[in-house]
Amino acid sequence: MYSERFKKLIPYTPGEQPQNRKYIKLNTNENPFPPSSKINDYLKSVDISRLQLYPDPTAFKLREAIGNYYSVSASNIFVGNGSDEVLSLCFSAFFNNAEGPVLFPEYTYSFYPVYCSYYSLNYTRVPVKKDFSLSVDLFLTSPAYTGIIFPNPNAPTGIGLEQQEILKLMDSVREDVVVIIDEAYIDFGGTSSIPLIQKFDNLLIVQTFSKSRALAGSRIGFAVGNKNLIEALTTVKDSFNSYPLDFISQKLGEIAVSDTAHFRDITERIIKNREYTSFEFKRLGWEVLPSQANFIFTRKKGIAGKDVYDALKEKGILVRHFNQAGIEDFIRITIGKRDDMEFLLDCAEDLK
Amino acid sequence: MYSERFKKLIPYTPGEQPQNRKYIKLNTNENPFPPSSKINDYLKSVDISRLQLYPDPTAFKLREAIGNYYSVSASNIFVGNGSDEVLSLCFSAFFNNAEGPVLFPEYTYSFYPVYCSYYSLNYTRVPVKKDFSLSVDLFLTSPAYTGIIFPNPNAPTGIGLEQQEILKLMDSVREDVVVIIDEAYIDFGGTSSIPLIQKFDNLLIVQTFSKSRALAGSRIGFAVGNKNLIEALTTVKDSFNSYPLDFISQKLGEIAVSDTAHFRDITERIIKNREYTSFEFKRLGWEVLPSQANFIFTRKKGIAGKDVYDALKEKGILVRHFNQAGIEDFIRITIGKRDDMEFLLDCAEDLK
Repeated sequence: MYSERFKKLIPYTPGEQPQNRKYIKLNTNENPFPPSSKINDYLKSVDISRLQLYPDPTAFKLREAIGNYYSVSASNIFVGNGSDEVLSLCFSAFFNNAEGPVLFPEYTYSFYPVYCSYYSLNYTRVPVKKDFSLSVDLFLTSPAYTGIIFPNPNAPTGIGLEQQEILKLMDSVREDVVVIIDEAYIDFGGTSSIPLIQKFDNLLIVQTFSKSRALAGSRIGFAVGNKNLIEALTTVKDSFNSYPLDFISQKLGEIAVSDTAHFRDITERIIKNREYTSFEFKRLGWEVLPSQANFIFTRKKGIAGKDVYDALKEKGILVRHFNQAGIEDFIRITIGKRDDMEFLLDCAEDLK
Repeated sequence: MYSERFKKLIPYTPGEQPQNRKYIKLNTNENPFPPSSKINDYLKSVDISRLQLYPDPTAFKLREAIGNYYSVSASNIFVGNGSDEVLSLCFSAFFNNAEGPVLFPEYTYSFYPVYCSYYSLNYTRVPVKKDFSLSVDLFLTSPAYTGIIFPNPNAPTGIGLEQQEILKLMDSVREDVVVIIDEAYIDFGGTSSIPLIQKFDNLLIVQTFSKSRALAGSRIGFAVGNKNLIEALTTVKDSFNSYPLDFISQKLGEIAVSDTAHFRDITERIIKNREYTSFEFKRLGWEVLPSQANFIFTRKKGIAGKDVYDALKEKGILVRHFNQAGIEDFIRITIGKRDDMEFLLDCAEDLK
C-alpha cells in the first residue's frame, strides 16, 4: 500500500504557525512589515473572471520581472511554489547517488536532509569552523560528491560567506557538479552570487519572496542560473506539476520585485533592528553570532536553549530552538519591529 | 550533473495557454463562468499584512470547509497545489514497482504516464471497450499490479463509470492496493464515490477546484479518503514542500466550496450547454461520445482530428487534439458559454 520511498521518509517540521493565540512570532523569519502597498491596490482591482482560467504555466512575466531586477534574461530564471519547492526540484534534477553524497554544512537548513530522504540521496554534513562559519576547504577536500548546497548567509547561524571564498569553491569544484547557493536571506546584508552565473554554468542561486519581499503567504521562490540548468528544472516541474504558481501569486511577485523603494525601506529597517538587537543582547551577556540575515542566533552561558525557548513562549514570544548536538544551547530569533525587540530584550533580561 | 531520474523524463505538455492573441479557449476544460462573486468581495478586503506571514501549512480551514461540503472530517481531506500535485504525491506515496505496474485506462489523463516516468514506475494501459467506456473486468483480470487510477468520468472521453462497476472493482481488488478515482469532472453529471471511503480504506478520491469551482487560476486540488491515506500524503508533502497552498488560494477555496448556490447555477448552465452542443454536433453528422464532463469528445468521418483542430484554430477557436493511436480522429471541446458554442457550431458546419 505504501511505496518504499514513503516508508523511509522523515518529514520536515516547519516552525509553529499558531492559528489561535496571538504570539509575537519571531520563529519563522517572516518579515515584520507588510509587502508593497501596490499589492493592496492590485488586490482591489482583480478581475475574478481571470481566475477561472489556468495561470501561465511558464510564469513568464514574473520571471521577466525578476530578470529585470537582476539584469539577467527570463531564460535564466525558474520560479516555483516557494523556495522549498524550487530546492526540492533541484535535489530531484541534479544529484545522483552514484557520484557520491550531497554535501551541506553541519548546521544548516533542516529541509536539506529531508529532501535527501525523499529522493534517496546520501549526504555528508561538512563540519563548520569553531566560530560556526563555513569552511570551503573542508568542502573541497571531501572525497567524491554529487553536489554542494549551502545557504549564504547560513541558517540558522546567520553567518555569511565571503565572495572570495565562493570564488575559490567555484574555481575548484568539478564542472559537472552543481553548486546551489540558497540565498533566502541574502538581502539583509550579504552579497548575492547571481552575477557569478555568467562565469559558472554549474552555479545555481535560489532565492525566495518569503523574507525580504514580505510575501511568505504567497509562496514564491526562484532559481537563477545558466539556461541549461533552468531548462532541466522546467522539465522536472513539468513531470511533477505544471502550474505550481497560481495567477494571483504570480502577479503579487511581479509587483513586489518591482517596488524597489519599499523593499529597500523595510530591509534597511530590519538591518537596523538587527544591529540594535544584537548589540543589546551582547550587552546583556549573550553570545550573538555575526548575522547577515533577518534573525540572530544567540546563547547565554548557563541557560539551555530549550529553557530560553520555553520561557519566552510563556511570555508570548515564539522563537525557534533546534534540538541538534552542537547548537542546542542556541535559539534563533527573527528580527521583528522595534517594539517587539524591546519587549524581547526585557524578557531576555529577566532570564536566569 | 543531471540525476538518473532526470535523464528519463518525458514531461507533460499542458494545453496551450496563449498569453497574447484572444482565442475562444475550449482546450483546457476551464469553466466559462467566473467563480463566486464572494471572492470579489474578499479580494477587496484582504489585509496584506497577513501576506508577510506563512500560510497554515495544514490548510485546516480549507480542509474543514471541503469536509463540511462532503460531510466528512477534515482528517479525511488532503489539499494540494492543484489536483496535479495531489495526484503526483499519490503516485509517490502509494505505488511500488515490486508489486507490479500501475493500471490506468488505455485512453486517459496524459499526466499519469508522466508521473510514472518521474517516479520510475511501470504501468499498463488497460484497454477500453469498443464504445470507449472503461472495463472493470479487464482491470481485475490484470496480473499483479501495485495500484489503479482512472478518472470518473474519464478524460478525454467524458464517459462516466456506473457506481455498481466501481463497487465491483472495490469488492475485488486486494485491500492493500490503493485505488484512486480522479473525479476532476464529477460535478458535471457523475456520481461521486466519496461516500464509499467509509467502506473502503484503500479508496482515494481526488478532485479539483479548477473545473466546477471555476478556480483554475488558484491551483487547488484535494483528496478524500481514510485518514491513514491522508496522513501518508501529508508525510510525503512535508518531505517535498510544506506550504504548497498560499494564503489567498486557501481563502478562495473556502469561499468557493461554501457558495453552493453559485456552484449549482454555473454547473447546471454548463450541463445544459453540453447537452445542446452534443445534440447539435450529432445533428451535423458528428459522433459524440456520451459525456458526463464539461467537455465533449467528438469526431466526424472523413476529417482527421488534427485537421479539425487546425481549421478551428484558424477561426480563433482553440480545442484539444491528442496524437494517440485510436483517438487521433477525435477532438476534445470544452463546453463554453452559449454564444461560443453557437460560433463553434457555425464553424463545424463549414468543415469538410
